[in-house]
Amino acid sequence: MTLMKQLTANDEFTGYYLLKELEVKQTNGTPPKDYFDIVLCDASGQMPAKYWDATPTDKETFFPMGLVKVQGIVQTYREKLQVKIYRIRKATPEDGVALTDFIRSAPIRPVDLIHMIKQAIHSIIDDEIRTVVSFCVAKVEEKLMHYPAAKTHHHAYYAGLAYHIVRMLEIGEFICKQRPFLNPDYIKAGIILHDIAKPEEMIAQLGIVSDYSVQGKLIGHISMVSNWITEAAIRCDYDLQSEKIIALQHLVLSHHNLGEWGSPVQPQMAEAVALHHIDAMDAKLQMVEDALDTTPESEPWTPMIRGLENKAIYRFKE
Amino acid sequence: MTLMKQLTANDEFTGYYLLKELEVKQTNGTPPKDYFDIVLCDASGQMPAKYWDATPTDKETFFPMGLVKVQGIVQTYREKLQVKIYRIRKATPEDGVALTDFIRSAPIRPVDLIHMIKQAIHSIIDDEIRTVVSFCVAKVEEKLMHYPAAKTHHHAYYAGLAYHIVRMLEIGEFICKQRPFLNPDYIKAGIILHDIAKPEEMIAQLGIVSDYSVQGKLIGHISMVSNWITEAAIRCDYDLQSEKIIALQHLVLSHHNLGEWGSPVQPQMAEAVALHHIDAMDAKLQMVEDALDTTPESEPWTPMIRGLENKAIYRFKE
Amino acid sequence: MTLMKQLTANDEFTGYYLLKELEVKQTNGTPPKDYFDIVLCDASGQMPAKYWDATPTDKETFFPMGLVKVQGIVQTYREKLQVKIYRIRKATPEDGVALTDFIRSAPIRPVDLIHMIKQAIHSIIDDEIRTVVSFCVAKVEEKLMHYPAAKTHHHAYYAGLAYHIVRMLEIGEFICKQRPFLNPDYIKAGIILHDIAKPEEMIAQLGIVSDYSVQGKLIGHISMVSNWITEAAIRCDYDLQSEKIIALQHLVLSHHNLGEWGSPVQPQMAEAVALHHIDAMDAKLQMVEDALDTTPESEPWTPMIRGLENKAIYRFKE
Amino acid sequence: MTLMKQLTANDEFTGYYLLKELEVKQTNGTPPKDYFDIVLCDASGQMPAKYWDATPTDKETFFPMGLVKVQGIVQTYREKLQVKIYRIRKATPEDGVALTDFIRSAPIRPVDLIHMIKQAIHSIIDDEIRTVVSFCVAKVEEKLMHYPAAKTHHHAYYAGLAYHIVRMLEIGEFICKQRPFLNPDYIKAGIILHDIAKPEEMIAQLGIVSDYSVQGKLIGHISMVSNWITEAAIRCDYDLQSEKIIALQHLVLSHHNLGEWGSPVQPQMAEAVALHHIDAMDAKLQMVEDALDTTPESEPWTPMIRGLENKAIYRFKE
Amino acid sequence: MTLMKQLTANDEFTGYYLLKELEVKQTNGTPPKDYFDIVLCDASGQMPAKYWDATPTDKETFFPMGLVKVQGIVQTYREKLQVKIYRIRKATPEDGVALTDFIRSAPIRPVDLIHMIKQAIHSIIDDEIRTVVSFCVAKVEEKLMHYPAAKTHHHAYYAGLAYHIVRMLEIGEFICKQRPFLNPDYIKAGIILHDIAKPEEMIAQLGIVSDYSVQGKLIGHISMVSNWITEAAIRCDYDLQSEKIIALQHLVLSHHNLGEWGSPVQPQMAEAVALHHIDAMDAKLQMVEDALDTTPESEPWTPMIRGLENKAIYRFKE
Amino acid sequence: MTLMKQLTANDEFTGYYLLKELEVKQTNGTPPKDYFDIVLCDASGQMPAKYWDATPTDKETFFPMGLVKVQGIVQTYREKLQVKIYRIRKATPEDGVALTDFIRSAPIRPVDLIHMIKQAIHSIIDDEIRTVVSFCVAKVEEKLMHYPAAKTHHHAYYAGLAYHIVRMLEIGEFICKQRPFLNPDYIKAGIILHDIAKPEEMIAQLGIVSDYSVQGKLIGHISMVSNWITEAAIRCDYDLQSEKIIALQHLVLSHHNLGEWGSPVQPQMAEAVALHHIDAMDAKLQMVEDALDTTPESEPWTPMIRGLENKAIYRFKE
Repeated sequence: MTLMKQLTANDEFTGYYLLKELEVKQTNGTPPKDYFDIVLCDASGQMPAKYWDATPTDKETFFPMGLVKVQGIVQTYREKLQVKIYRIRKATPEDGVALTDFIRSAPIRPVDLIHMIKQAIHSIIDDEIRTVVSFCVAKVEEKLMHYPAAKTHHHAYYAGLAYHIVRMLEIGEFICKQRPFLNPDYIKAGIILHDIAKPEEMIAQLGIVSDYSVQGKLIGHISMVSNWITEAAIRCDYDLQSEKIIALQHLVLSHHNLGEWGSPVQPQMAEAVALHHIDAMDAKLQMVEDALDTTPESEPWTPMIRGLENKAIYRFKE
Repeated sequence: MTLMKQLTANDEFTGYYLLKELEVKQTNGTPPKDYFDIVLCDASGQMPAKYWDATPTDKETFFPMGLVKVQGIVQTYREKLQVKIYRIRKATPEDGVALTDFIRSAPIRPVDLIHMIKQAIHSIIDDEIRTVVSFCVAKVEEKLMHYPAAKTHHHAYYAGLAYHIVRMLEIGEFICKQRPFLNPDYIKAGIILHDIAKPEEMIAQLGIVSDYSVQGKLIGHISMVSNWITEAAIRCDYDLQSEKIIALQHLVLSHHNLGEWGSPVQPQMAEAVALHHIDAMDAKLQMVEDALDTTPESEPWTPMIRGLENKAIYRFKE
Repeated sequence: MTLMKQLTANDEFTGYYLLKELEVKQTNGTPPKDYFDIVLCDASGQMPAKYWDATPTDKETFFPMGLVKVQGIVQTYREKLQVKIYRIRKATPEDGVALTDFIRSAPIRPVDLIHMIKQAIHSIIDDEIRTVVSFCVAKVEEKLMHYPAAKTHHHAYYAGLAYHIVRMLEIGEFICKQRPFLNPDYIKAGIILHDIAKPEEMIAQLGIVSDYSVQGKLIGHISMVSNWITEAAIRCDYDLQSEKIIALQHLVLSHHNLGEWGSPVQPQMAEAVALHHIDAMDAKLQMVEDALDTTPESEPWTPMIRGLENKAIYRFKE
Repeated sequence: MTLMKQLTANDEFTGYYLLKELEVKQTNGTPPKDYFDIVLCDASGQMPAKYWDATPTDKETFFPMGLVKVQGIVQTYREKLQVKIYRIRKATPEDGVALTDFIRSAPIRPVDLIHMIKQAIHSIIDDEIRTVVSFCVAKVEEKLMHYPAAKTHHHAYYAGLAYHIVRMLEIGEFICKQRPFLNPDYIKAGIILHDIAKPEEMIAQLGIVSDYSVQGKLIGHISMVSNWITEAAIRCDYDLQSEKIIALQHLVLSHHNLGEWGSPVQPQMAEAVALHHIDAMDAKLQMVEDALDTTPESEPWTPMIRGLENKAIYRFKE
Repeated sequence: MTLMKQLTANDEFTGYYLLKELEVKQTNGTPPKDYFDIVLCDASGQMPAKYWDATPTDKETFFPMGLVKVQGIVQTYREKLQVKIYRIRKATPEDGVALTDFIRSAPIRPVDLIHMIKQAIHSIIDDEIRTVVSFCVAKVEEKLMHYPAAKTHHHAYYAGLAYHIVRMLEIGEFICKQRPFLNPDYIKAGIILHDIAKPEEMIAQLGIVSDYSVQGKLIGHISMVSNWITEAAIRCDYDLQSEKIIALQHLVLSHHNLGEWGSPVQPQMAEAVALHHIDAMDAKLQMVEDALDTTPESEPWTPMIRGLENKAIYRFKE
Repeated sequence: MTLMKQLTANDEFTGYYLLKELEVKQTNGTPPKDYFDIVLCDASGQMPAKYWDATPTDKETFFPMGLVKVQGIVQTYREKLQVKIYRIRKATPEDGVALTDFIRSAPIRPVDLIHMIKQAIHSIIDDEIRTVVSFCVAKVEEKLMHYPAAKTHHHAYYAGLAYHIVRMLEIGEFICKQRPFLNPDYIKAGIILHDIAKPEEMIAQLGIVSDYSVQGKLIGHISMVSNWITEAAIRCDYDLQSEKIIALQHLVLSHHNLGEWGSPVQPQMAEAVALHHIDAMDAKLQMVEDALDTTPESEPWTPMIRGLENKAIYRFKE
């Protein structure tokens, strides 16, 4: 079966793909006819497709986020590749294909990512900090297996959030070794908690965010975590005014660094300054790496990346 | 006894005043001598003062925020009035003067303000909203009797916070009548809760803020209230995901309107938009009123007001 | 006759509507054929429509801002409702329909709004202030009967400007009662004058702004009012340097508060600070109310509102 | 007599100077003694001075902005030169010195500057434009003989405003020749009118601005000129809606280019774009020239210049 | 032959034009057919065009930036003029038409512009400055004959850069006469060098920029010139630390005035301040002149101009 | 000998210290007397001091940046500690004290830092990159032994720049291991080169910056390095247009990330994005660490740190 990223103009092909988007449109003719405006994808990339002459049955058969078997040809339309679909049918259990094989996902298995995060929690020495972190992670543990870290900005794929946390934990471990005045418990806790409410802030399926939740829009993931820490402290009978609870809330509330980036307070403890920079370094470098990975080798420039001052990245040949 | 704001150059006077600030300094002579650099105040205003030749006993007797009886003369120094103190002694119980008579305070008695706030709470129809508001107010009820609403910005005097809330409730009541699509319960709750954590954010005495608390700096009053609402919901066994809890948290979190003004989310419910504007209108107009009140009648311009784009206000003669 | 906002997919209907927009387009076929790309509206809302096979006669018959009788069917196109027009003809006097029945307008009759504004002018005690206000209102009195307050921002409908003024007068009356140090004459004058040049700044028909006038672009409504006050003073033989004339000009010039919002000076008199906040409160809350009114009850979120930090408003149930 | 800029450490000297600033201060001794904290200046520069042991008679004799004869010595205090005054007396008519000899002023005589401005007015071809310009200039003609163009920013000296206008007229003449599509009448009118209300916006004596007028603060010179143009048109019975009146008002209103720089509208006619750049070029280059002129030759860097992004200018040796 | 700017609706015409843009598109029909979406231009303006029924041979015959002979008719599509092409063929040598006759270009011949620039270089008195300038100009001399000054902002046509330099030299000459404290050598050098690397920063053909070079994006023309000056100094064996080399680099590096406009340092020498304002004045006025030139006489407003705060320019009649 | 940071009120002491600052001032008495206003320091901290009754000989004996032996007493002045000096003399060779023992410096010996940097250079695989880096380092090698990384912002002490580079190399090594798509040669080169011109941009002695050089102000360290790379390429006969030279210049030019932070271009290669974040992380965390180190243990808050949004850092007790 041919991977999306390998298809070139005039290729005729047959294969299984994910119907990532599907819209029923009508031609301008009289009478207008229904056709499907489609986005097909697999883990290697995606391509727009047209299925002309959609029947009423087709309209009740095909929906976004379903797997299909497609026979078609690649054409060029407005200087871009586009599939013209000859035949299409839904994939069946007998086809032996799984949804998760057709989406982008973190390069480490979700179960392994969760395991690493749990090990990091386990290594937190202070009981109170460790317990609060566990409490918050437990709230989203199932979703942490597959949620992305953002809608489009960075780590926007299956298990992207867990992958972001794991990579930040690696940087955090290094920085704590390099600068022993930092408290590793706070660094670990800050990293694991900082975006932990994202699965409740966003509505996602297979690593693809379709919208934000009402709570996500009205409260935001930063304040949600702060509230969760309050909840954790009450449930575990910890003092809400204790320095540890305040420190954990401060780490989360300040991690976007500036008010205009969503943080109601600015970093005012050493570990909060570190957390912001660990987060920024991992997110920005992942944007770069993902952009280079998904840009054809032949292209010297990636598309513009909004999170990097809207600049494209140049691929030096060495 | 002469009021501060009535003293003019060359007046000799005797009276009771509050030692608002006191610093021990030394003259440049050889050997240097100790003197007191003082700010005297009463409810009508304040004036700098010098007490030359302070004795070691004096240094152990006089401290800021104490009442004193002073005999002195008003002189002009660098175009400003300044008191030269001849004699000074601490006020005694026999003098029959009370600290609270010497500070600026809201024009309505604290007990009456608290009563009005309680009536407003009582008038909230929805049980859940009313209970959460009561819970949060109870946390600071004692301090609400005397805390200012800010360090210097607005309502910076005894019971200023309660006064700010009461005046906003008046505006809120009017707006709800004018625009019936607004929910009065949310308007009242938003007004009472929006700054309710300020007494825990700031450290104040007699309406004068000396500093911010650790929690105030690291969490901020906006997020503190959000956490208190979470706590209230848990203590009262309300659903943390209910629209009412989310709405109350949203009202508080968004009331500064913009990220750069400290709000992690922007107003996204009708009452939140209203709350921001009720707050702004009351705070800004109070700044103007206070500036005009404390500027001598003879001055056409108030000092510059930081909260009003750093502009002075002109007093039109009508 | 069915209201626009009540039409749903697959409804067949006949009724009178306003041809709000009409563009002649051509199909891509060979030879291309003319069709009409239309927006139909009534006072309840609007909907796009297509009229295929427009004849040369049709092209000379139908123009924007005319009333038509339409027979058609509602279809779904790109997830949005759209009318396919079967038959269309211009409304005739015999049909007994009036343009003003088909447009959005203020909830109070224009004559009543004008009456209220005149009463407010009448209640201004100071002769000079009252005369200047009357002079400026007289310049646009006829247009004040129907002009909107803005192109799209707020009160963008028939008699929206007069409605905005009347509602602000209500708030102004309340604030003057709450804060007696404010001069009601200046508050009333500022409210009535602040946007009074808008009918000369914008070109509107039936409450719909099509463009800005040359003077509107080159001078702007704020400076235009300032010039009108100068004119009023000269015509009435008032001293151009008097505090009253300066105060009135200052109220108008400063009411946008900041230079980047179009005010060449910032508020520096108490009533100017009040005016800005009365204006902001009324404009912002009206944006919210209008957005909720014109969003179908079934939708929890309004569209994004540019004047509210580009945020949508959530409709809480209860 | 020695010029200020030529005095160096330890020089003993006698001469006439202007008492630019004078404050009575008191030493810290017991009892404190009065002394004068003074700024002496002449047209070449200025220097701080101290006059110890000021008598009560001295305090009633010496005031700012008076000419004095001084005998003193130059000392170094905190790495800066400072005069210690031995003897001081007021200048008398017999001394034959004139105030205007001791202040900075434009390098061209005021009468000549006014003459050049009048010639430029005279050369305006269009009657209506010429008449409006004459009307506005007539309002301040006497003050135009000596007013500065700004408080500190640029051309802050005797007849600085007239000099600024004359130099801009030179640039304007060149630009009109280089780019014939520009209308010289509008260029001349815009240059002469753009700051013509400054003498009413500021309160100045001998080219030194002490404050802004009430009208200056509340209306601002930009809107004041707009009002004057309205007045001129009415007095001369011109159509207030004519393109010429609108163009003149637009030129003035837009000449600061951006809202945050005080212009309520942005340049939207060719001559308005030109006017802004002619103004900027002349003001900025004059700041540079003045800073270099008043910085001792031995200093490679001028002080920081606020109007030039707060940068200092380096003096290259060529 | 009819000029583009003279064509009006329903004109039938035959003539030579430049195929400025050409895209092969497909109709929505089944089966879809190829057609050309074209932009035709000559020196007077440009117009979109459609060529339906493009054959496979056509697709291999016509490419952008080629001259063609066209027979067609002008139609109105979406209120804009558009050509429907009946017949099209490539121009042949026998047709006697030249590419350069069909593009916009500076109003002075490139050879003359280069000559003027060389004269200016020749008139630089200082050997070192003159040599460095010559060295840098030599790097791009051939491209200077035809490169534009920018992609779209200003002087975006054939030889636009050389024209920009020549016009700035005229302003520079005037300013040096008006303000003799400016060093003409630095003014001339700064003007010639400030954008001299643009031909290496951008990729252009016939005065039309298609993209930026890799070096242009990664280094930028400002830093490129700085490097070239370093190179010039080394090649000519000048001291890299000399004031002249530093001054030349400073002139170039600071000419955008602010960091957010691309200058790593701000102007700190008199000539650098002058250079920025000479550049701004010429660029902005040229934007205005070009916009007025290319807007039909009947239109009172030009399109919005991004470099002028996105404002349109009004064409006053007289 | 007592360390500065250990001195408390009323301590009498004798010891060697560095005269970091010395100003001769005069008392206000008649006649005024000379005294020294001094800052004493050692490696642990600093304290203001007064030496009353300075003789003419003293004024010719003592200068800033000299070592002295002091006998004195610690007093409290305006709530801060201050030394009153009884006796003072210059340190002599016999005293056996060295300047470098009395200043703050990096926690690793300069020779070791230089060694580490050289090892990093040595490990660069690509000859061209390694040679260019060596060339630039050679320009400042001697100064790299002791220069700070900034005037006050971060690493503002002896050998601070070398220490900053070494710590960044550690982070760089980690990141290259974590993200193998990064080119270690570019990461190392970017780290070593990014601030390598600072010793020529600033004028420093013993790690204390007194001013910026003329070249530093007019060119800035970022563009200076770019020029040095050009010079290196020419001297070594490398192609100035090669991707390697462009990449090295891009790394340096973009490392401040934004125009308003001084970078003329924004990061557009993966290693440039990484470099910016490595630099930010090291600089910000060092600011925190240094602030905590130099704040007495008893103080819960450090002073405000300008580079951290002007926030103070709280010291949590764990």
